[in-house]
Amino acid sequence: MPFPVIVSSLFSLTECSLYCFSFKSNVFKTQEVTFADTKETIVKGGRDLFPLLPKAFEGIKKIGVIGWGSQAPAQAQNLRDSLAEVGSDITVSIGLRKGSSSFSEANECGFSEEAGTLGEMFDVIKESDLVILLISDAAQATLYKEIFAAMKPGATLGLSHGFLLGYLDSIGESFPENMDVIAVCPKGMGPSVRRLYEQGKDVNGAGINSSFAVHQDKSGKATELALGWGVALGSPFMFETTLRSEYCSDIYGERGILLGAVHGIVESLYRRYQRQGMTPEQAFLETSESITGKIVKIISTQGIKAVYEQFNDADKAEFQKAYSASYMPAKEILQEIYDEVSSGNEIRTVIMHGKRINKFPVGKIDGTDTWIVGEKVRANRDEDKIPINPFTAGVYIATMMAQIDVLLEAGHPYSEVVNESVIEAVDSLCPYMHYRGVAFMVDNCSFTAKTGSRKWAPRFDYILDQLAYTAVDNGVPVNQQLIKDFEQHPVHSAVEECCKLRPAVDISLFAETSTKEIVIQ
Amino acid sequence: MPFPVIVSSLFSLTECSLYCFSFKSNVFKTQEVTFADTKETIVKGGRDLFPLLPKAFEGIKKIGVIGWGSQAPAQAQNLRDSLAEVGSDITVSIGLRKGSSSFSEANECGFSEEAGTLGEMFDVIKESDLVILLISDAAQATLYKEIFAAMKPGATLGLSHGFLLGYLDSIGESFPENMDVIAVCPKGMGPSVRRLYEQGKDVNGAGINSSFAVHQDKSGKATELALGWGVALGSPFMFETTLRSEYCSDIYGERGILLGAVHGIVESLYRRYQRQGMTPEQAFLETSESITGKIVKIISTQGIKAVYEQFNDADKAEFQKAYSASYMPAKEILQEIYDEVSSGNEIRTVIMHGKRINKFPVGKIDGTDTWIVGEKVRANRDEDKIPINPFTAGVYIATMMAQIDVLLEAGHPYSEVVNESVIEAVDSLCPYMHYRGVAFMVDNCSFTAKTGSRKWAPRFDYILDQLAYTAVDNGVPVNQQLIKDFEQHPVHSAVEECCKLRPAVDISLFAETSTKEIVIQ
Repeated sequence: MPFPVIVSSLFSLTECSLYCFSFKSNVFKTQEVTFADTKETIVKGGRDLFPLLPKAFEGIKKIGVIGWGSQAPAQAQNLRDSLAEVGSDITVSIGLRKGSSSFSEANECGFSEEAGTLGEMFDVIKESDLVILLISDAAQATLYKEIFAAMKPGATLGLSHGFLLGYLDSIGESFPENMDVIAVCPKGMGPSVRRLYEQGKDVNGAGINSSFAVHQDKSGKATELALGWGVALGSPFMFETTLRSEYCSDIYGERGILLGAVHGIVESLYRRYQRQGMTPEQAFLETSESITGKIVKIISTQGIKAVYEQFNDADKAEFQKAYSASYMPAKEILQEIYDEVSSGNEIRTVIMHGKRINKFPVGKIDGTDTWIVGEKVRANRDEDKIPINPFTAGVYIATMMAQIDVLLEAGHPYSEVVNESVIEAVDSLCPYMHYRGVAFMVDNCSFTAKTGSRKWAPRFDYILDQLAYTAVDNGVPVNQQLIKDFEQHPVHSAVEECCKLRPAVDISLFAETSTKEIVIQ
Repeated sequence: MPFPVIVSSLFSLTECSLYCFSFKSNVFKTQEVTFADTKETIVKGGRDLFPLLPKAFEGIKKIGVIGWGSQAPAQAQNLRDSLAEVGSDITVSIGLRKGSSSFSEANECGFSEEAGTLGEMFDVIKESDLVILLISDAAQATLYKEIFAAMKPGATLGLSHGFLLGYLDSIGESFPENMDVIAVCPKGMGPSVRRLYEQGKDVNGAGINSSFAVHQDKSGKATELALGWGVALGSPFMFETTLRSEYCSDIYGERGILLGAVHGIVESLYRRYQRQGMTPEQAFLETSESITGKIVKIISTQGIKAVYEQFNDADKAEFQKAYSASYMPAKEILQEIYDEVSSGNEIRTVIMHGKRINKFPVGKIDGTDTWIVGEKVRANRDEDKIPINPFTAGVYIATMMAQIDVLLEAGHPYSEVVNESVIEAVDSLCPYMHYRGVAFMVDNCSFTAKTGSRKWAPRFDYILDQLAYTAVDNGVPVNQQLIKDFEQHPVHSAVEECCKLRPAVDISLFAETSTKEIVIQ
């Protein structure tokens, strides 16, 4: 059988991440924020900055948004509306595969071939000054050469995710040297990027935070353009990262607490609670519902530690037992994920998986007992009666803290860590899972996220069952140092700091969200 | 954090495996066997061939067996005893790390510093004409440079497993050009290699089959030496492979039906049968016990299809449902394993995992409900009352057939396929699991096998639960083509052919087997 031609990327994030996170802008006011013992430069967004967009987009006449997945409809509309609001004549056009069924959806959102704002993807690419590439990871890996070749001289390539760099790294290639390459990566799925933007009309600054990366800056204007793009999307704040740091944390995060770990935690606890005598319905309530309906809401509004602090003493003790037993087993899997992603292995896995899907189409996971019971529980849901199970909270939060620590130890900046491990989970993904179920989310997210979640969820499940719950059942004493580390962790102030930078809005309103692929960024 | 320096290996097994499996020997009589539509050259072993050993070992005065894991005690004793039997003056010495606790065990087996047959590993390497390297994969990856440098000019490197080539491939290195490199790979764990050799004194030809590979042959004598080594080990027959084909099939096999898949199948069915109303004890009997105590015994003596054929019509129908639903999901995971191994990803994973073990020691899996119940069931076991559950048989055999098909599609020869997917499972590993339990086997096998099994078992579990059992429960009709393919599969005659080449002996006598690391080869 033919094997993909692959060469591994070699790099050290640490080297990179230590010097990359202070930037300058002549258009937007930067701001220094202190996260624990580190300082980062950010730009706070808001609709009041829209008048600066023409300056930030200097030299750009046409923006081509390529694709119509989850991010593209949101980003294209936000960009168009923001630019229109300040009377800019920059056009935003959608580029799609010939014959794509998304033409009509794009039409419904106000893009049309008649107006010249909708067309075949390569036609749109050829005439755009900024090409925002939002097609699937697999399509990027297949089409990148043709896309690079089609771009006009001096045009900028815009990404919302570092996957393409990860792929190029894994085959020993790189972007053409003569173009600017930037990324603006909203830390939430597309529908929430659009919904919060709309809410932002009433609540200035509501939106999904974005990281941005300037990977190549031939023109000297790349930073302003990236910041302008983020402001136009409605991001409450933008923090800098590198494209490599982004793909490492992003691909890692969705395999961890954002999706894969939640799935594995729920499955393992759902079985455990039934073994202890609960009905399947009660076990689902005390696991999945407890996480997506209660625990993440407390984290979203009051921070991670608040979940622990609101328990009575008995429940605090139960939380401690679960936390202490779960932290290291969860961290073992998370460190493995991180190593697989950062070594290039995981991206090769995704690419190889893509080559198998004609023979082995990716099946759905939603038919098992857990999710059938879950559907019933959701149908009869009384939000007020959803419990905050202290054991479940201990396992979930231990995994979240382990995810944070692995990223911090690898040198990622706090903004990225908090957004990839906390804010995206509690503000974007878990609310959606609460609305439609964990299994639905796994079955409908991007190929990279879906296959990663299916790969790693069972690993979290097994290791928690094998090492964490057995430790609890065997009476292994609580590791007080772990609890102390949790209580005194600098991430709590960083989360608080990040939360200050965005107004609290309720984004758990997903009734109108289409059921098409959910792209986790 | 530092990342390992890695370069991927690029090769196509197909190209290689099509031309490698016909060899010549001037010492031993080769034999052509027909497996389905292919012919392979083999050498049938036996004690009657021992007088040919001096000729096969021409030029070898000292054999150094390095290490004292699972294979080393068996191979060193078998080699020594076989050579002694024909009055050869070739010495077999054991080389160990300075201060290794295995010195006394080696003493007990008749190797001693006084007699010059036991010493520090590099001392032994320096003076050996054939260095049989049986230290752990991790140690090979760490020490290979020093070992190569210590070997005397003209000495031959002997391996029992292709891992070191896989590792060298993954870092873009290779063996020094000026040495012969051969491998003899017994298709069973060390204790069975020794036990069957001892039984072979009464039953000529009893033993564990070996594949052999001639990777570098500067001297022109490498094939004879490899065949002599295999004969001296007591292998009933030896078939040729390449070192690369060996590590692909070997690392793949232990992640699949040899260990990882058995674990995942048992866990998924154990839950399923309890959901259907069985007690935990009964569920364990109908899953783990059924496989290791009954199903594999039928396969070992009568072939794979015999399991199906001995069922009544109702049970045949149940088998068909399980087989039809499980074949493709199991194959999906097996193909993923194969791709991961053959692309070099899996070996990088093992190496990266090795670098984490100080921080995350590999925990035991035997503390969960499944294996605690299993221990009770084994303690009260009545062999005669172990059921042959037709659903369990359908899932297990579907997975075995899927493993066979993935290997055949990748171009592996039938000897290798049958040994790695059937004979090693039913004659070596499952009998041991029947004796001590699946979890004990996982917890006590080599690092490469253990971490691989822990990685892939949960994947089999989840995919069977998500895709196979849901299909059965939703009444998806049996795919008659799959059943026909199973019934008419050419592998059945190949298994029969392989079985003819070794006498039937009962090797499920493990009472004396030490509990030290079990190395699956």
